[in-house]
Amino acid sequence: MEGAKIGVLTVSDRASRGEYEDISGKYILEYLKDVVTSPFDVVYRVVPDERELVEGALIHMADHEGCCLILTTGGTGPAPRDVTPEATEAVCHKMLPGFGELMRAVSLKQVPTAILSRQTAGIRNKTLIINLPGKPQSIKVCLDAVFPAVPYCIDLIGGPYITTDERKVRAFRPPT
Amino acid sequence: MEGAKIGVLTVSDRASRGEYEDISGKYILEYLKDVVTSPFDVVYRVVPDERELVEGALIHMADHEGCCLILTTGGTGPAPRDVTPEATEAVCHKMLPGFGELMRAVSLKQVPTAILSRQTAGIRNKTLIINLPGKPQSIKVCLDAVFPAVPYCIDLIGGPYITTDERKVRAFRPPT
Amino acid sequence: MEGAKIGVLTVSDRASRGEYEDISGKYILEYLKDVVTSPFDVVYRVVPDERELVEGALIHMADHEGCCLILTTGGTGPAPRDVTPEATEAVCHKMLPGFGELMRAVSLKQVPTAILSRQTAGIRNKTLIINLPGKPQSIKVCLDAVFPAVPYCIDLIGGPYITTDERKVRAFRPPT
Repeated sequence: MEGAKIGVLTVSDRASRGEYEDISGKYILEYLKDVVTSPFDVVYRVVPDERELVEGALIHMADHEGCCLILTTGGTGPAPRDVTPEATEAVCHKMLPGFGELMRAVSLKQVPTAILSRQTAGIRNKTLIINLPGKPQSIKVCLDAVFPAVPYCIDLIGGPYITTDERKVRAFRPPT
Repeated sequence: MEGAKIGVLTVSDRASRGEYEDISGKYILEYLKDVVTSPFDVVYRVVPDERELVEGALIHMADHEGCCLILTTGGTGPAPRDVTPEATEAVCHKMLPGFGELMRAVSLKQVPTAILSRQTAGIRNKTLIINLPGKPQSIKVCLDAVFPAVPYCIDLIGGPYITTDERKVRAFRPPT
Repeated sequence: MEGAKIGVLTVSDRASRGEYEDISGKYILEYLKDVVTSPFDVVYRVVPDERELVEGALIHMADHEGCCLILTTGGTGPAPRDVTPEATEAVCHKMLPGFGELMRAVSLKQVPTAILSRQTAGIRNKTLIINLPGKPQSIKVCLDAVFPAVPYCIDLIGGPYITTDERKVRAFRPPT
């Protein structure tokens, strides 16, 4: 059985220049290994906060690599160089506002500045793209909140059947 | 006194082909009869998940039938043929994001996949259009949450004065 | 040290014609004086519910007056002449959906018609623009909810360092 491909895209000027280690992208890799029990390969990339480069990386991971899921980290704030949500919206055919709403709602229990995050999610053909925050602790809070809905979403867009370790994330599929 | 006209639009490939009974649309009719105490007529229609047909039905119900309210059911998920929110946004002049936010928030208490719903609401001239989910149980949760604001919204856009059975839905109008 | 400039824009046909006193705009001025402890000047203006005039006032306050923050009041409902969110979106380069989500969520605890509010927030260059409701009591609920994130947002877009009276609003800046 062929496994799923999952993209992890770190959007960061400094990490892309090698000025510091990309702990956020690596944290997402660890989270996936810890939670996803069905087979999968990871496509991992770091790009600077340039809208065209973010769009290009998303399109490449979706269309050429065939990722069923892409998780981005970074570039979702209000600063001038934060462009990840715009790049995501530009490459998606359908937006899923519920992801951003829920991620902000759970992050708001940690810090009042959660409302500054512009994270969103959407679908490009058979790929679900989700923007995550930049900090590992915030990434965990967001992934724990939305991941239960991810496998069923991937089912609905014609992707591979993803399973999770139910002690960590309880994937929900409605009874048919 | 002339009553209000309320549109019920079921968006479903299978129901439109007669492959199964439209229990969702019928559930909405029952809900309205149970809750709305002012006089109203229903305009009811079933269309397949084709964006142009959904838009055409919404425009016809709004502009030609003169519905003050249109409730849609179906077609709000992430699947390729789910196009109801896009059709709604295309025909509306004003979007009301608070409806989708609240419907997802209350649905989320039922199932974690509620974030996959892209339901929205908006206004076309004197018509309030609200997207509802596909399943009767989810429809009830959403209508119970948003209906208290519906009569006042219809007042504000110049529609008829709607009243409700307060034991079931307590319509709220701010003191003037 | 030069202080910040904060714009207060009342959007109201009746207030702009002098038919009644602008208690909403004045309430915002009092709130700012009560809460913000760093030096600031206010740029205050009243315009009718005309999209071009609202846009023009926002642009003038942002680009010519150099306001780091503009708070609007009025014009966010579903009525035909409510155009403040559209005007805000038209002049902003980046939208911050978390503000509207949180303001509706806290307002919903007061009245079920809070979902009718289309308030949003966004950034134009170095200016944060936030739509507030029309009534002083609702303004307070919304500002109390979002103001803790405002000073850090202004930091991120390159504006002046704003401080608040912590007994009233606890501005949050993440540890660097």
